[in-house]
Amino acid sequence: MDSCYCYPFLFGSVVYFMKEIKIKASSLHSAFITSGGSNLLSLLDRYKIKNVFIISDDKVSELYQSSLDAIKDRTAGVFRFENGEKSKTLKTVSDIYSEMLKCNITRRTAVIAFGGGVTGDIAGFAAATYLRGLRLIMIPTTLIAQCDSSIGGKNGVNLSGIKNIVGSFYQPAFIYTDVNYIKSLSEKDYKNGISEVIKYCFTLDESLFSYMEGNRKGILEREADKLLHVVHECVRNKAQIVEKDEYDRGLRNILNFGHTIGHALESSSGFDISHGEAVAIGMNIEAYMGVKMGALDIAAYKRLLKIIKAYNLPVMGEGFSFDWEKAVYYIYRDKKRGAADIRFALPDYKTGGVQLLELKESFVKETILEMEG
Amino acid sequence: MDSCYCYPFLFGSVVYFMKEIKIKASSLHSAFITSGGSNLLSLLDRYKIKNVFIISDDKVSELYQSSLDAIKDRTAGVFRFENGEKSKTLKTVSDIYSEMLKCNITRRTAVIAFGGGVTGDIAGFAAATYLRGLRLIMIPTTLIAQCDSSIGGKNGVNLSGIKNIVGSFYQPAFIYTDVNYIKSLSEKDYKNGISEVIKYCFTLDESLFSYMEGNRKGILEREADKLLHVVHECVRNKAQIVEKDEYDRGLRNILNFGHTIGHALESSSGFDISHGEAVAIGMNIEAYMGVKMGALDIAAYKRLLKIIKAYNLPVMGEGFSFDWEKAVYYIYRDKKRGAADIRFALPDYKTGGVQLLELKESFVKETILEMEG
Repeated sequence: MDSCYCYPFLFGSVVYFMKEIKIKASSLHSAFITSGGSNLLSLLDRYKIKNVFIISDDKVSELYQSSLDAIKDRTAGVFRFENGEKSKTLKTVSDIYSEMLKCNITRRTAVIAFGGGVTGDIAGFAAATYLRGLRLIMIPTTLIAQCDSSIGGKNGVNLSGIKNIVGSFYQPAFIYTDVNYIKSLSEKDYKNGISEVIKYCFTLDESLFSYMEGNRKGILEREADKLLHVVHECVRNKAQIVEKDEYDRGLRNILNFGHTIGHALESSSGFDISHGEAVAIGMNIEAYMGVKMGALDIAAYKRLLKIIKAYNLPVMGEGFSFDWEKAVYYIYRDKKRGAADIRFALPDYKTGGVQLLELKESFVKETILEMEG
Repeated sequence: MDSCYCYPFLFGSVVYFMKEIKIKASSLHSAFITSGGSNLLSLLDRYKIKNVFIISDDKVSELYQSSLDAIKDRTAGVFRFENGEKSKTLKTVSDIYSEMLKCNITRRTAVIAFGGGVTGDIAGFAAATYLRGLRLIMIPTTLIAQCDSSIGGKNGVNLSGIKNIVGSFYQPAFIYTDVNYIKSLSEKDYKNGISEVIKYCFTLDESLFSYMEGNRKGILEREADKLLHVVHECVRNKAQIVEKDEYDRGLRNILNFGHTIGHALESSSGFDISHGEAVAIGMNIEAYMGVKMGALDIAAYKRLLKIIKAYNLPVMGEGFSFDWEKAVYYIYRDKKRGAADIRFALPDYKTGGVQLLELKESFVKETILEMEG
């Protein structure tokens, strides 16, 4: 990723701009980011795609299906599943295969993943494995998917309660991101995304950090130009990480910041707590552990706390309560699949890389107790 | 693929030789070919693999499991399915995932596909999709798997009667081929492999063709040095094709020679006819269609017929009878998934490439009738 293009296009009588970020992963592909109009049809022409199969969930279909009207004539089939993480199963994927078979999908058909992270995960896996791989187009509709999960080629489904245990790395033909979808997101879904944006600021992008600090009001009001900038910068950062470590062997771990504890909070609460809140608290705790280990400066930690609060996300010790026994058990229950101690990822500001801290259960517990005050 | 190595290793007090063929596909990997002893353990050391999960079928397990005794201490789990094409289902793959989960398989575990083509297809798919990809070791035990299917990274399972409709391209860490397994193959399984070897001679390798013609007796008696040469040359040829066209977009189609008609014979006979016989007849008919279309010299066709007969495989018009109506229907039933007419692949001896002939159902029928006469 070293080249960003920006070019105008005509929609009705208005000229819009679309930015292109080229991602040099195992296959070179592009993310197109726009804040208005639809030039999806012209992108299909550019990629010589005459036939698509759309995978989406019931919620996204209801809200946004009409935005795909322009490509109706090219749609060979649509598969809709029930919104939510519970649909991320092999059963859903198998149902998609059957529908593709019924619709006579060939290798010339492209799969469109239209929705949030769950849709990208399911549709990505189906596209990667039907006829040994169909072209995949990501059209992310949530902030979290636009900023993060639609980039990088990871897909997956859950099995026996373990997230993404079945899946692959499979890069899309292109990603088409229209920030207008963000405007109709629920407050909860929007904040889920903001939490990831804060992760990008804190781990990778000082200049985006300042932008988030300086443009709080406009961002909270979801102004189009602000969204466009924020999404573009996150995609640019993610693309750089993916180019350097596509298969998650080192640097890409940085994107896990806040998520080891975050996932444990989500799981142990039975998903009562939102992803955004869980990651905010996770970043809070993980950064503080870094401070205690001498791996992170106290000033960086305080700045992180401040921005989390500025965007109305929770921090430790300020009214946030939780069943921590259960959560910590959850973190270390997974350890059979990894190292004996659990690894936490922190940014290394000196090198621009990642620091991995292997921490014991007792240390994690002790830190949380201390933070609860 | 431009480098073949040969080096000695010690097993008990005997020095054996192992040949290495490097395959420069999307990931660089090697095929190791040996005719005796076992140096699998030293290969695991070389690849720093301390933990394996073995996937095999009941038949291969019974015959050869003891040959994996040397790696017993590194085996975290074994999954056995019922021998045969009918096991190539999503259900089998899902059962493998569950067993892997039970055995606490991590990303550091390598999957061993131990058996013939079906095992490679199933285990390859499971390895490609568990934890977004585990290292895969192919240990092919049949001639057809050693010469052909273990190389190239294709995997797949069947759905609703359509072969390999679900699957991916996923290259192994390495392929370990011991031609000694060939010695205990049934006559039928051996001939299935010989038919593929003839495909390689005819489409790609004049010098292997002469070798097959000149060493008929030793090859039919499965002499170790003859097997070693034949397998090595087929792997070398396949590796070259895979390097040039890993994702089956052109040249790799050459390996489909004899198989369009061959598969139709197998399917329409309910798998009464063996793969080897079906491919032999398929090569016979497809080559003759090439002659009729002016795409193949009559001398090449006659030489092909001669070698098929020399290895006791069937040819048209000499006692081979079949329900051709049904077979031709089977070929064209698939056309909704591809071009309107069916494509047949023939070697292009002038360029070393592939010719693709698009032929109508009526022409195929007419040719078969003529050949039967």
